[in-house]
Amino acid sequence: MAIRKLYGTLGSPDTIRALASIFEHELDFEFIPIDLDTGEHKTESFLSLSPFGVVPVLQDDGLTLFESRAIMRFITHNYHKPGTELVFEVPKQQGIVATWIDVEDHQFNPPAEQLRQELVDKTKKGLTMNKEVVAEAEAKLVKVLDVYEERLTHSKYLGGDRFTSADLSHLPNLYYLMGTPVKRLFEERPNVSAWCRHILSRPAWIKVVEMVEKNKAV
Amino acid sequence: MAIRKLYGTLGSPDTIRALASIFEHELDFEFIPIDLDTGEHKTESFLSLSPFGVVPVLQDDGLTLFESRAIMRFITHNYHKPGTELVFEVPKQQGIVATWIDVEDHQFNPPAEQLRQELVDKTKKGLTMNKEVVAEAEAKLVKVLDVYEERLTHSKYLGGDRFTSADLSHLPNLYYLMGTPVKRLFEERPNVSAWCRHILSRPAWIKVVEMVEKNKAV
Repeated sequence: MAIRKLYGTLGSPDTIRALASIFEHELDFEFIPIDLDTGEHKTESFLSLSPFGVVPVLQDDGLTLFESRAIMRFITHNYHKPGTELVFEVPKQQGIVATWIDVEDHQFNPPAEQLRQELVDKTKKGLTMNKEVVAEAEAKLVKVLDVYEERLTHSKYLGGDRFTSADLSHLPNLYYLMGTPVKRLFEERPNVSAWCRHILSRPAWIKVVEMVEKNKAV
Repeated sequence: MAIRKLYGTLGSPDTIRALASIFEHELDFEFIPIDLDTGEHKTESFLSLSPFGVVPVLQDDGLTLFESRAIMRFITHNYHKPGTELVFEVPKQQGIVATWIDVEDHQFNPPAEQLRQELVDKTKKGLTMNKEVVAEAEAKLVKVLDVYEERLTHSKYLGGDRFTSADLSHLPNLYYLMGTPVKRLFEERPNVSAWCRHILSRPAWIKVVEMVEKNKAV
């Protein structure tokens, strides 16, 4: 049997997005760490898997995929478990999930990623955050969360009444931001706050966090 | 019968991405122009369809979707014609298409969009382009096209041996850049050049261009 492999780094939101999908589907896999600090993602052998040098990469039974959301979509589609699929089979409902995956990518991720870099990465490296960048990113995130608050009055999750990849896709940056003062922006909004609690407490996500925390402790 | 509606603006690459998908699937629809210059996308009635104020929006039999690539994925999935689907049913092949849709979004689109703004939009408005921005964006685009050139030695199209949504997604910015000096970057690469010729000459795309050009002439 071919061994399923995920190449990536546990400090990368994109890598842990793919990991979340793997754990949700209870798939066996081997994790191959890629050291971005030493430029391992720019080596010829890694570029042969991921031509833009991005992590993560999934190798699965002869298939090589990169781009975390594409990996998430593939896993969801290929390994769905009847009754607990992370997408809907009905095209219309699937279209709504697709819209909210792209909302995460285009609306939520840019300010969330900036805030993660300023408030988490820079702190870890002993650097000073850029207050102006933080203020701008917070203002953008507030607008996004206001839309989410409204959206979540209509359905328990972003993509519909069930947890789907549209929610899963938010977990990496949500997890990082919950450890920063930005947490208050989520807590101030009752629907967003309940949504965060629900999705961050999923057993699969807790496994991802354990893996990330264990790696930090090494 | 409910009328299918696409709200958008013909000067928006995202709108014409959705249009390309509609024409590829030969769907009847009504086009509702949204005037970004007068802020029509920020009115309450438009925000009730597209909460972030982005175009395009598709309304189809009770469903409302925004985000052009999500609209494209929905149409591809919901209206596929046997034998000429713009995606593959086999999950592995579908995963490859998903990867190259995200490559367009994350690698190709950022420099292509910057170049379109500098070389097309600014020229139209009589503004001077920022040479530094153009040079940086060109350098990024060159790296992307080098990967595409290699990729297209393995398959005729980015997502496999058939034209798929992964190719379609590139059409809007390809079309704009072909009218600028950046065209040479595509022509210098034989596989990329052949790929551009093939996908830009698809009858559905020619219909989109006719609609865009007719609108310019008004």
